[in-house]
Amino acid sequence: MAGNDHSCSIEATLAVIGDRWSLLILRDIFRGHHRFSEIQAELGIAKNLLSDRLGHLVSAGVLDRVQYQERPVRHEYRLTPKGADLSASLIALMKWGDRWYADDTPPTILVHNSCGTPLDLNVSCPTCSAAVPPGQVRSASYVES
Amino acid sequence: MAGNDHSCSIEATLAVIGDRWSLLILRDIFRGHHRFSEIQAELGIAKNLLSDRLGHLVSAGVLDRVQYQERPVRHEYRLTPKGADLSASLIALMKWGDRWYADDTPPTILVHNSCGTPLDLNVSCPTCSAAVPPGQVRSASYVES
Repeated sequence: MAGNDHSCSIEATLAVIGDRWSLLILRDIFRGHHRFSEIQAELGIAKNLLSDRLGHLVSAGVLDRVQYQERPVRHEYRLTPKGADLSASLIALMKWGDRWYADDTPPTILVHNSCGTPLDLNVSCPTCSAAVPPGQVRSASYVES
Repeated sequence: MAGNDHSCSIEATLAVIGDRWSLLILRDIFRGHHRFSEIQAELGIAKNLLSDRLGHLVSAGVLDRVQYQERPVRHEYRLTPKGADLSASLIALMKWGDRWYADDTPPTILVHNSCGTPLDLNVSCPTCSAAVPPGQVRSASYVES
């Protein structure tokens, strides 16, 4: 990252998933597409680009590359706990898109796997015990307590 | 986006904020840095790149370019309601980074502006009235009810 000491967790995060292909690949894997050829067909992404992004996500610990067949050897990609933990980020980004680009019905959503209900995402303040709308959010430097 | 009809709101979203510079610029503006020179100094980003990204965020309706001085003419950048509505996405991405890249204390967080408390982000299922951990999330195609 460019030269000063204002590093933060969002920079670390974006170093891993900070391009649209990486997020689209993760969305597809959340959707249940685990194999190179499936993801490639879904996204229409060039094979070398997909291979590069999958390798990057594996080395970042977000995906596991798992052998599912011996002859010929075939692998598929599974979310690690670290990758599954990106669900809130994906939900937030998808809901924002739904609110501001809802020209037609959003074809992909994240749901509760046991009941199929589309998930809610709530921003709240633990001190005020209240939901916090976007206009009441500001950024701050972390101060150690 | 590459050629098939699996468009979704995350693609629309990523078309606007799907690169790390755009998100870092937004984080800085949430933090209260509104002027070109401030953001440029904070991020150490090349001027032509910053100019390009700010123009993109303005034309996407995420930022407003507002004149704050007449002689010489100077502008600053303010979040629109659409931009402020990205707070949940920024919180989610920053919290994920905190959990998985917490080598040291995260220097920037999003807080409740009235009390300064770091915000919580909760994924919940409205049908089950329960918090939903990452392992219980799956992606689904939207089915009209």
